[in-house]
Amino acid sequence: VAGEFALIERYFRALGTRRADVTLGVGDDAALLVPPAGHELVAAVDALVDGVHFPHGSPPASIGHRALAVNLSDLAAMGATPAWALLSLTMPSADEGWIAAFAGGFDALARVHEVSLVGGNTTRGPLTVSVQVMGFVPSGQALRRSGGRAGDAVCVTGTPGDAAGGLALEQGRAQASGPDADHLRTRFLYPLPRCATGAALRGIASACIDISDGLAADAGKLAAASGRGVRIDIRSLPLSSPLVAVFGTPRARELALGGGEDYELLFTVPRAHLAALERALPQAEGTWRRIGELTDSPGVFTVDGGVVTQFSHAGYDHFATG
Amino acid sequence: VAGEFALIERYFRALGTRRADVTLGVGDDAALLVPPAGHELVAAVDALVDGVHFPHGSPPASIGHRALAVNLSDLAAMGATPAWALLSLTMPSADEGWIAAFAGGFDALARVHEVSLVGGNTTRGPLTVSVQVMGFVPSGQALRRSGGRAGDAVCVTGTPGDAAGGLALEQGRAQASGPDADHLRTRFLYPLPRCATGAALRGIASACIDISDGLAADAGKLAAASGRGVRIDIRSLPLSSPLVAVFGTPRARELALGGGEDYELLFTVPRAHLAALERALPQAEGTWRRIGELTDSPGVFTVDGGVVTQFSHAGYDHFATG
Repeated sequence: VAGEFALIERYFRALGTRRADVTLGVGDDAALLVPPAGHELVAAVDALVDGVHFPHGSPPASIGHRALAVNLSDLAAMGATPAWALLSLTMPSADEGWIAAFAGGFDALARVHEVSLVGGNTTRGPLTVSVQVMGFVPSGQALRRSGGRAGDAVCVTGTPGDAAGGLALEQGRAQASGPDADHLRTRFLYPLPRCATGAALRGIASACIDISDGLAADAGKLAAASGRGVRIDIRSLPLSSPLVAVFGTPRARELALGGGEDYELLFTVPRAHLAALERALPQAEGTWRRIGELTDSPGVFTVDGGVVTQFSHAGYDHFATG
Repeated sequence: VAGEFALIERYFRALGTRRADVTLGVGDDAALLVPPAGHELVAAVDALVDGVHFPHGSPPASIGHRALAVNLSDLAAMGATPAWALLSLTMPSADEGWIAAFAGGFDALARVHEVSLVGGNTTRGPLTVSVQVMGFVPSGQALRRSGGRAGDAVCVTGTPGDAAGGLALEQGRAQASGPDADHLRTRFLYPLPRCATGAALRGIASACIDISDGLAADAGKLAAASGRGVRIDIRSLPLSSPLVAVFGTPRARELALGGGEDYELLFTVPRAHLAALERALPQAEGTWRRIGELTDSPGVFTVDGGVVTQFSHAGYDHFATG
């Protein structure tokens, strides 16, 4: 049979890592999987839509990578170790070169995280990629958004804002070339989910969320889920040198706070766990930075020297009119 | 926050049945679930695209129902009991009436099968609904497409062809009105996945597949996965009286063989298990019928009296040009 089924056979049968806990993968009506004892199953789904979550004409390898990455980031935020993925791909035509590159981008990231693609479907239609991932966490040890308390330190991994800067460059809303610009574009096109960090935060962090809609907006979500507010010290935001070089510090801070698409982790740590955090995630490697704390009063506030500002941008809402 | 998040909160937070094995459902980065011991996890994903899998303008309740039903049908074909679902919904605008009706259709079917919606996302874009379902099967007891042997009886549930007839009426490719036509339309709009039948077939059927692309094409897939061929007796096809009344017997048989969208189960049974099948699924209720057998030689053949025809239609291939 030509078309859909042949495409699935050729490109999607063996994506990612072959795992012993997959009894039956792609090719039957459903996959058969063996969850480990003593663990909870962690499941997330997220879709990327052409022109909404990535610019039209994005490299297919990036689309394949990001479709998996945004979901692995959700597992990372729960402290979970990923295992299996399912893929639902709608595309306007069966362009073999596109599919091969898309599959390559998905496959490369899947192998890094030892994820096996165990099922999927391909349909003609507007380009939309929905990926569902499953992973495990030792029972009762998952990180949630809701565990933070007033006084907990607020920390973030990586250098937020890079992806938003890269997206602005990709979309032509900003112009720059050279290694700094290339670095930022790559940070948008190929975000790296922080699964190892998320797993290392189990037992240390009190709450965790991944940054997809913007650091400030997602910090606000974590704080609200925890029944708290959050204060972010603008001057302690970890800005990358390429972001500052291309956009300047004031705009870089705006991108870091409000840009979104970072897929870094924002987490809270009780003061009593800060030493354990230093041991678990050495800050010298630049993998995380303390940027604020949870407060008793609700809302998201930024502090720049002595100036306190309430942050009102709600993050990128796909149905907002603004 | 208006828009995406508010919509998810209002309509998708509590869809389906509340289950004790859901530690954490919709609302965090991912769901936390507790798979039962001694079982394999069974996972499937399928997407419905506007204008491809349902006519543009279909009732939103039907779209919500079908998006879940086609996935539950995949679990049924494995002999699995469904438990959890995730939803990825892309829609052009946040029409509250549409969403409420869509959610109502999804919810009603989820409750019938005791499925809990545990995660999802909503995005602006062309109308596409991707649902991922998870369920369980006692370890080692899943039904597959590949277990059939030559001489096994081929059986089918329900009355295939009704959905294809109903779709033809919905699309205006056929004209009819009255109770028979309404029955067929309902069979397309609200297919009933055969989860209880699938579970009852464990230990009895040698192979199983659900009919989404057409009885003959899916029988061919099961036969090929089993390394066999299949012979179908045209005169034993279980045609519904509404289908025959609206389309006449010859066209009804064509619809039953090639129409698709039935979401009935096609399964094979070793002769030694036929008595057990009769006990497990009383044929008197009209829930299944024996329609042929697996053969040593490959291919799909139909028998009409003494006339044998090779079936060449490959089913509805979303990328086929024909």
